[in-house]
Amino acid sequence: MKTLQSIENEIKMDSFGTSFILSDYGGTYDSHIGGTITGCPAGVAIDFDFIQSELARRAPSSHPHSTQRKETDKVEFLSGIENGKTTGAPIAFKIPNMDVQPNLSMLHILKPSHASYTYKMKYGITDNSGIGRASARQTACRVVGGAIAKLFLKQFGIEINAICRDAACHVSTNSGDTFGALIHCTIKNLPAGLGEPVYDKFDARLAYSMLSINACKGFEIGKGFAAAQMKGSEYNDIQNPDYSFQTNNDGGVQAGITNGQEVYFRVAFKPIPTLQMEQQTIDFEGNPVTCAGNNRNDICVVPRVLPVVEAMAALVTADFVVKTSALLPH
Amino acid sequence: MKTLQSIENEIKMDSFGTSFILSDYGGTYDSHIGGTITGCPAGVAIDFDFIQSELARRAPSSHPHSTQRKETDKVEFLSGIENGKTTGAPIAFKIPNMDVQPNLSMLHILKPSHASYTYKMKYGITDNSGIGRASARQTACRVVGGAIAKLFLKQFGIEINAICRDAACHVSTNSGDTFGALIHCTIKNLPAGLGEPVYDKFDARLAYSMLSINACKGFEIGKGFAAAQMKGSEYNDIQNPDYSFQTNNDGGVQAGITNGQEVYFRVAFKPIPTLQMEQQTIDFEGNPVTCAGNNRNDICVVPRVLPVVEAMAALVTADFVVKTSALLPH
Amino acid sequence: MKTLQSIENEIKMDSFGTSFILSDYGGTYDSHIGGTITGCPAGVAIDFDFIQSELARRAPSSHPHSTQRKETDKVEFLSGIENGKTTGAPIAFKIPNMDVQPNLSMLHILKPSHASYTYKMKYGITDNSGIGRASARQTACRVVGGAIAKLFLKQFGIEINAICRDAACHVSTNSGDTFGALIHCTIKNLPAGLGEPVYDKFDARLAYSMLSINACKGFEIGKGFAAAQMKGSEYNDIQNPDYSFQTNNDGGVQAGITNGQEVYFRVAFKPIPTLQMEQQTIDFEGNPVTCAGNNRNDICVVPRVLPVVEAMAALVTADFVVKTSALLPH
Amino acid sequence: MKTLQSIENEIKMDSFGTSFILSDYGGTYDSHIGGTITGCPAGVAIDFDFIQSELARRAPSSHPHSTQRKETDKVEFLSGIENGKTTGAPIAFKIPNMDVQPNLSMLHILKPSHASYTYKMKYGITDNSGIGRASARQTACRVVGGAIAKLFLKQFGIEINAICRDAACHVSTNSGDTFGALIHCTIKNLPAGLGEPVYDKFDARLAYSMLSINACKGFEIGKGFAAAQMKGSEYNDIQNPDYSFQTNNDGGVQAGITNGQEVYFRVAFKPIPTLQMEQQTIDFEGNPVTCAGNNRNDICVVPRVLPVVEAMAALVTADFVVKTSALLPH
Repeated sequence: MKTLQSIENEIKMDSFGTSFILSDYGGTYDSHIGGTITGCPAGVAIDFDFIQSELARRAPSSHPHSTQRKETDKVEFLSGIENGKTTGAPIAFKIPNMDVQPNLSMLHILKPSHASYTYKMKYGITDNSGIGRASARQTACRVVGGAIAKLFLKQFGIEINAICRDAACHVSTNSGDTFGALIHCTIKNLPAGLGEPVYDKFDARLAYSMLSINACKGFEIGKGFAAAQMKGSEYNDIQNPDYSFQTNNDGGVQAGITNGQEVYFRVAFKPIPTLQMEQQTIDFEGNPVTCAGNNRNDICVVPRVLPVVEAMAALVTADFVVKTSALLPH
Repeated sequence: MKTLQSIENEIKMDSFGTSFILSDYGGTYDSHIGGTITGCPAGVAIDFDFIQSELARRAPSSHPHSTQRKETDKVEFLSGIENGKTTGAPIAFKIPNMDVQPNLSMLHILKPSHASYTYKMKYGITDNSGIGRASARQTACRVVGGAIAKLFLKQFGIEINAICRDAACHVSTNSGDTFGALIHCTIKNLPAGLGEPVYDKFDARLAYSMLSINACKGFEIGKGFAAAQMKGSEYNDIQNPDYSFQTNNDGGVQAGITNGQEVYFRVAFKPIPTLQMEQQTIDFEGNPVTCAGNNRNDICVVPRVLPVVEAMAALVTADFVVKTSALLPH
Repeated sequence: MKTLQSIENEIKMDSFGTSFILSDYGGTYDSHIGGTITGCPAGVAIDFDFIQSELARRAPSSHPHSTQRKETDKVEFLSGIENGKTTGAPIAFKIPNMDVQPNLSMLHILKPSHASYTYKMKYGITDNSGIGRASARQTACRVVGGAIAKLFLKQFGIEINAICRDAACHVSTNSGDTFGALIHCTIKNLPAGLGEPVYDKFDARLAYSMLSINACKGFEIGKGFAAAQMKGSEYNDIQNPDYSFQTNNDGGVQAGITNGQEVYFRVAFKPIPTLQMEQQTIDFEGNPVTCAGNNRNDICVVPRVLPVVEAMAALVTADFVVKTSALLPH
Repeated sequence: MKTLQSIENEIKMDSFGTSFILSDYGGTYDSHIGGTITGCPAGVAIDFDFIQSELARRAPSSHPHSTQRKETDKVEFLSGIENGKTTGAPIAFKIPNMDVQPNLSMLHILKPSHASYTYKMKYGITDNSGIGRASARQTACRVVGGAIAKLFLKQFGIEINAICRDAACHVSTNSGDTFGALIHCTIKNLPAGLGEPVYDKFDARLAYSMLSINACKGFEIGKGFAAAQMKGSEYNDIQNPDYSFQTNNDGGVQAGITNGQEVYFRVAFKPIPTLQMEQQTIDFEGNPVTCAGNNRNDICVVPRVLPVVEAMAALVTADFVVKTSALLPH
């Protein structure tokens, strides 16, 4: 198996955003994961209970489709907050990993539709930290960054909400199989005018953020794929003399810029690749093997992905708002 | 109508890419449009006929669904090419606009589902250049940048091809209405290992690039939205002992990194917002008016958007390849 | 002679700034040089005569120390300006080269203390465009970008002025030798508060901008190198009860942030490396040769470098101001 | 006292580098300071004793000119290192602060030539974290980042060494006054070819990095300011037929690119602004007050700044090398 071997290629950089920026580190088998939020304005009230509750939404729970791994995600903040408010300085945080024993029997197996083959092809090595970055564990950092972003956006009345529109799992749970899901997300109370007009469009950045989430395979905004079958005369959002819109087929974004209507979009996730049932695959040397997860693995992405979708939407929105926040009524 | 009025907000920056970068300028009513490609390696053979043929694919033609506007897009290169090869220095180009008379009667009308309302809300002003940047005219620059990217990628055998999978227009052309389209695109002969593992995933960047195209409302890769209805046992791409894959449901990207299989994705475009038939709307002061395009306006995005989709895919691919090109067999 | 040979290494990217950005292209032997200014706010009044006069300051003239090359630098703007004001869209410009015959006899000679050896070691090739980018010709683009920046800064009353404090050339002109110079530059009427507190300090960015100018070898602000010999009790700038300062030893920047006093700094330039008198050197194969310039080469950097120093200071200042301009009294 | 008050302005972002990147957080009065190094290639052997010894060089000690504050700088790594080698993933570290009681009596005093006035003007608020970022405490993070960079560069034989060339303090220590210093730094065994040709020159980035260090007021490379007084015939570095140079007046950088000779440069630091002797100044309301430091404050920058200068030079060098490291003989 020939790999791309270069020093440059072995670099795994991890930050998101251009003004309101989340950078994070750590994987499943490190002692901690954590990160830094830079670009969050001073004076944002930090509700620690809210942040913990967001992490609790993401953490595995008694939900029957969730992993049984213990993840008491207790975030600790190291800088950037004084007297319950952000100071404008970098906000550093860390979350201890409670359960860091790697499943050694799986390390040399190419888990189907998983990161193991592509990481091996890209990095040559298969260190725990490396592959650990591809784990869903990393999304806890996204949720912390997103929670800070939500608290910033709350000042302007902006609210973000994701729900599961359709998950194949809600009939059957005991098969050892896994399931995908379709998530629907809304952003309410956005001002008109957010987004860059040519390349860095508001919806382009939303699509980028969603496809960056593990297992995401599709994004559509407004009428989305259905728009391809429509005529202009039935699709166009007509405005009334008071500038209100008669419809919202565009999903709140026109020509890449928000128009003040509610933004709504849908995100498709494939089934979680690690199954509890056995699958045929190969190991790193090409030998046929079978692999199977255990009851620590999730069955469906839904219970954990909702706060992650919201977090990425919040980070994108905060990034655009922070550039223009002087302009908003506050 | 209250607008976001800030100096900062009036900036319209326009570049795409992080290593292989297209920056461009100009709109429908400027004397020229043009741009610069930086980061293209030295030594790439430049086939000027090929670049012109790509522009010809994008230009309006005798196709019954295309605008009748004259756009003899003749690109001129100003620097960065010597003896038919790139020198590594910035490649500057320009394309004259042949037909620069603005339709003054439309300037104060909020064209439905168009850039006019969001630009007004963002910039306050409605200069020709500003709104001109939102015109499909700008995509000629994308095609030139993409053609250079294709010539760079050709050295590695990488090929990109977009086709129209389904367009609502292929039955009816005389209604004065417009139509959307579903485009299918493939990237062949990509090496495994392209893409960053956490945020800057290969497919996240593809999604970003596609949503940046005018009128795009959706992106999906591999099984895409259908994956949300599948079980893991039927979705997972199993590998054989020779490392080949039995299926390609992931569309050539796993955990954000290419796996050496063909990349394929679909892009949804809404109907072109300017109709030849009359629509009810309002002007900038909120007065009810009707607006209608003319026979210079396109009926369907299909004939022109194919080279634009390919161009954006080529720019994304070149951006990832240029960081790792020393590693490829050449 | 072993060279660093990599595709990546052959890239020559050329842009300056993070918000108010100049990108440029072209060298001595291209048909044009030119560039784009992005991030300049809408509504800036463009005085074309002023821009031409800045180019005239940089251009060779009847000054006895200047090259006799013809450089009628006539800038042409292609986009981003309407009715004499910026629109916020990218401002593209180009300047034709009048005199593009390369001195072929010099192409294979390693000109002492010049770009020829380091370019050869970096790029392997010695294309005209490549080496042309290292020519002082490129600085015409800096002057155009700087002139736009000055017009933007003029709205806030900010003025930038460079003078020659000391040039070794002012006694002797006929020796065939060349001379360096010490330039003193001031920025007046800056508000307090510009600059980032840790890495991206106002003076750090000034230093970066000055060392990016051809032949620059040193930068100091305020008391500069003399400060290393002073005691704190004689150096510190004490403030009066009205917040005014008793002295300005810090040169208007404290802890990386402007304090509202005049910014002043000095820049050292080495002698121009190409002499009209003969020098011993080697060619690319290591053979001893002599080389000599001709009366087209400048004798001293002074007459041409003043507007370049001002332009870079203006670009740095505009880059910081554009982020905070909503805050300034206007 | 009017301040620039904007949300955007209250952001204090803190990262350095474009490929090999140090980001850090925390100030004097936070529980920790720390940061992340991203872009460090996999496989670099990490010598923890070396990193601690670098921190020990920076820490106050028995040296009579150093602060008596307790700073047992014990760095802890949280991710990115396995089995003593970097994995390519982000390297997170933190350093506990031992002594975090702010000197409350000083909080409302404008310390002369210090950050207090400019921070007040920029941020409006005077939080501990904010002003803490301007403290020399932050440079411990630079030293950790620089130590990692040195370990990376060691693979290529590259060595960096700073010495104090001249410090005004070496006669007198008991006056209560403070002193500046002139530091001389060398980078040995660099390959030719590092640096970008137009704006992002190797020496421009060095200047930027040095002026980013607290209290730095000047930078010069090679002959530096003395070059302004020289003639080309005495300055130019002539090459022999074996490509070796007869002199090194350019300090190892020509046209912004390293030429394979030793890089050497000098950096000027002003006296530390906080004196143990009394100084007249004002408080935030403009009332005349006196201020004085105590025996916890340093007298001269020299004992602590040497590893910081080396660290910044190492970060700049690593940033250029990492882009081209595949090319180096290893």
